[in-house]
Amino acid sequence: MSLRENLLLYLVTDPVICGPKGVVPVCREALKAGVRFLQLRDKSACTREMVETAGRLARMAEGFGAVFVVNDRVDVALASGARGIHLGDDDMPPALARKILGPEAVIGVSVRTREGAEIAWREGADYLAANIVFPTPTKPDPRKPLGLGGVKDLAEATPLPLVAIGGINRENAGKALAAGAAGVAVVSAIMGAEDPGKAVMELLEALGAR
Amino acid sequence: MSLRENLLLYLVTDPVICGPKGVVPVCREALKAGVRFLQLRDKSACTREMVETAGRLARMAEGFGAVFVVNDRVDVALASGARGIHLGDDDMPPALARKILGPEAVIGVSVRTREGAEIAWREGADYLAANIVFPTPTKPDPRKPLGLGGVKDLAEATPLPLVAIGGINRENAGKALAAGAAGVAVVSAIMGAEDPGKAVMELLEALGAR
Repeated sequence: MSLRENLLLYLVTDPVICGPKGVVPVCREALKAGVRFLQLRDKSACTREMVETAGRLARMAEGFGAVFVVNDRVDVALASGARGIHLGDDDMPPALARKILGPEAVIGVSVRTREGAEIAWREGADYLAANIVFPTPTKPDPRKPLGLGGVKDLAEATPLPLVAIGGINRENAGKALAAGAAGVAVVSAIMGAEDPGKAVMELLEALGAR
Repeated sequence: MSLRENLLLYLVTDPVICGPKGVVPVCREALKAGVRFLQLRDKSACTREMVETAGRLARMAEGFGAVFVVNDRVDVALASGARGIHLGDDDMPPALARKILGPEAVIGVSVRTREGAEIAWREGADYLAANIVFPTPTKPDPRKPLGLGGVKDLAEATPLPLVAIGGINRENAGKALAAGAAGVAVVSAIMGAEDPGKAVMELLEALGAR
């Protein structure tokens, strides 16, 4: 499976949205149902806890042939055996992460503009995330949603695979692909689902993969 | 200068306590006045900001022959050219940090018991911090202060150099050395001083180094 194929349905964790079920069990259900790209995102846990959770997710993802990356924390990625890292504007510059993680690591970068996409490509990103596409309940976000037009614009501007993130659900997932995205990334649509496995299958269907 | 000598007066940064002066200028004054061990501690800044501050402090410390380490964040240490890391209970296990940072890195570990000191030594720590020795205004801390008796106990139990941290000032700094510490670590006593350089000189005098 190529990185582009892995990116079709990309799950970002959230310890609050998944509630008492817990991140690891929800990720297991999602991987079983067909998610092939997983990102640990946690802005509140201490490093020791993050390393422990990341280690469990890394081993689990590997068993399913999925790519596992950590949001922001290169230290947690190194300590857990993650395949790579996802970086935003507040995180380490991609070129620095590449220097630390080496040529084999998968590095994703959130972008909003053609210029940002060009810089991320030059800095060695392996994939980009158009962030954010639709308004999202995951976090209060002052950024104007890019919309499907923004996805199309970014996809045309870069040779890298692009995932659409922000407010993605089974109604609009197919439209993101039609606009040029290689895949969609979701938080709430799976993390907050009563039946995460069913939510994955419905999203894969909307993406034409079932 | 040996690591033990560097540890005599150890400054831990705090972006709140140092106020509008800013962490980098206060550290510069402290290094000029004789501090030879510096730790960047910041639990609120984003990674990009931390990497930038750490890079400036690493270069500055090197110019003064001082050791510079980062609290908790192995990624920031790697990205900034820091000499090493300081780890507490919530951070990465020392053995894992050693694996990532390599044999040359300086690794410090906060301990409270003889058993903790023994484990940290086995896991490859280069120095220990007795944390906390006296009640401290830096952070609300539910831990019972170890007192000078605790410092003596830990110093006797380990072959590693030990720094005393928590509520250290020029009145009690000399007593910590007399109890067996290789040095003292301070936050408020320098970060919160009106004249950080003067505070350093007074502490060095109390430590018998002037």
